[in-house]
Amino acid sequence: MEDVAEVAGVSRGTVSRVLNGAFHVSPESQAAVRAAMRETGYVVNQSARSLVTRRSGAVAFVLSEPQDRLFEDPVFNVLLRACTQILAEDDSSLVLMLASTPQERTRVMRFVQGGHVDGVLLVSTHTGDPLATELDAAGLPVVVCGRPPDAGLRMPYVAADDRGGARLITQYLLDQGRHRIATVAGPDDTAGGVERLAGYRDVLGARVPDRGVVRATDFSIAAGHAAMAALLAGCPDLDAVFVASDLLAVGALEALHAAGRRVPDDVLVGGFDDSAIAPATRPPLTTVRQPLAQVAAEMVEVLRQLIDGRPASSRVLPTTLVRRGSA
Amino acid sequence: MEDVAEVAGVSRGTVSRVLNGAFHVSPESQAAVRAAMRETGYVVNQSARSLVTRRSGAVAFVLSEPQDRLFEDPVFNVLLRACTQILAEDDSSLVLMLASTPQERTRVMRFVQGGHVDGVLLVSTHTGDPLATELDAAGLPVVVCGRPPDAGLRMPYVAADDRGGARLITQYLLDQGRHRIATVAGPDDTAGGVERLAGYRDVLGARVPDRGVVRATDFSIAAGHAAMAALLAGCPDLDAVFVASDLLAVGALEALHAAGRRVPDDVLVGGFDDSAIAPATRPPLTTVRQPLAQVAAEMVEVLRQLIDGRPASSRVLPTTLVRRGSA
Repeated sequence: MEDVAEVAGVSRGTVSRVLNGAFHVSPESQAAVRAAMRETGYVVNQSARSLVTRRSGAVAFVLSEPQDRLFEDPVFNVLLRACTQILAEDDSSLVLMLASTPQERTRVMRFVQGGHVDGVLLVSTHTGDPLATELDAAGLPVVVCGRPPDAGLRMPYVAADDRGGARLITQYLLDQGRHRIATVAGPDDTAGGVERLAGYRDVLGARVPDRGVVRATDFSIAAGHAAMAALLAGCPDLDAVFVASDLLAVGALEALHAAGRRVPDDVLVGGFDDSAIAPATRPPLTTVRQPLAQVAAEMVEVLRQLIDGRPASSRVLPTTLVRRGSA
Repeated sequence: MEDVAEVAGVSRGTVSRVLNGAFHVSPESQAAVRAAMRETGYVVNQSARSLVTRRSGAVAFVLSEPQDRLFEDPVFNVLLRACTQILAEDDSSLVLMLASTPQERTRVMRFVQGGHVDGVLLVSTHTGDPLATELDAAGLPVVVCGRPPDAGLRMPYVAADDRGGARLITQYLLDQGRHRIATVAGPDDTAGGVERLAGYRDVLGARVPDRGVVRATDFSIAAGHAAMAALLAGCPDLDAVFVASDLLAVGALEALHAAGRRVPDDVLVGGFDDSAIAPATRPPLTTVRQPLAQVAAEMVEVLRQLIDGRPASSRVLPTTLVRRGSA
């Protein structure tokens, strides 16, 4: 560090202030220090630095879910990529952690409480998730992706407007002149499962067809196929269906094809997410767009506010309709 | 740490040895120290510890690729999940880093050389990747996922047997009595694109149909669709096709359906990967299984050998044929 100070022509204290991101350093001195760092090949020793700043420069991205499901979900992949990129732009690192078993949860709590990361981005959608409860009780900086399913938790969240998006697409199906609009809903222990069904009911009210609501057991293609088959059995005269996620809709399209129903001629199909799979289905899927890059950016922004001890609030981001061939 | 030593009834040095994973501590003392840590609520300060051990306890998982493509590839997701889980079992953390722009590559090199991680798991498949060259030159512990496309690099790799797998499925298509077996190959600056085409040629030799080889521009669904359409135009009497990845095969199936060719009646289709999408295509995809969990486990094992300064070698893992409905 002394070499850097000498080359930059500033004091050692100024170099230290620049490295620790302090204010009260003139732009000229900052530029000189950074140039000198490049010239001398100075590399910050993060271990030494974090003993001083009490900041690790890292954030944990924690998946508190059965892992297969999430890693197969294009929504999760877009979020993970966007968070990694946004953190890197600020020279922070993303530590990926899984927490679907009690052992993994113990490790995550130990790691986070041990100061290895400055905060947590938590992907957890199921009610009664013990990790969410533990993190909340520990009072650590945590931002939840999606509306936390347990209303009692205090952690701020960043979510797309699930209920508003479901209203948008249900109204759109109605506006196409369809009258028997059914729905494949998500599991009722998830915010997506609850909020998207609520939006569907907001629009249809008493016009929800008899036996026109079937819940999928999870958000997978196979569960969408099974739920759609159950809908066709119980409500065979349906002429449109709102499916609560794009992956579920892939399965629903399979079941409709297998039953000889033409999409969109016989049955309109609307999805939710606008994930990478939506333009690749046959026919391409009309769906609701979640602004995932913005969700990621605002999760990181809210987490930084918490880490800095500033006031932070939850955010709900608007969704939009994307029209393709299926409806 | 003194509290822990007192509660455990051992010396401070014994506590330190247990924390740093040293040998020569009796199982009884180890158990006593761990119990005392739980009792006293002792949490290791990783920053302080890494100043002593010179180990960070973390490994970087670096994607040196255009990001969209990888995050949409189910193969990548399985690898990322498996590596995260295997590292966690050994109390190591996975730091996810992107390196598809010059700025990101600079950050990765600075981070890795700054001692924030003990080694690198590198996912890089394109020839002439500057990050692979830089990491190799820096002499850091690095293991490459897949055969490095540049033969001059010294870093060990862990790969599935691409060429052997392509031989397996091509021979299988031949054994079904098909005579006009075409192929959609991967890009020629990737190991998958080169090796899988070589395996196909190994089996067919002079029996490769005229205009029966088309290269996809990348490993996406859209590229598979375009390549299959080109094959049908140039080699319309083909009766089987080996497609060099499952995602490409999804696009190839689309193009075959669009052209009115029945699968498997008119055209057999074989893929490569056995990713999550393979059982969900119509018809379900016959393909070559990459042992991804084993690839992940061996990547971590080889990286640990390098970190410990032990001799490490590259690994090539066998692939197997998975029969479904498409061939």
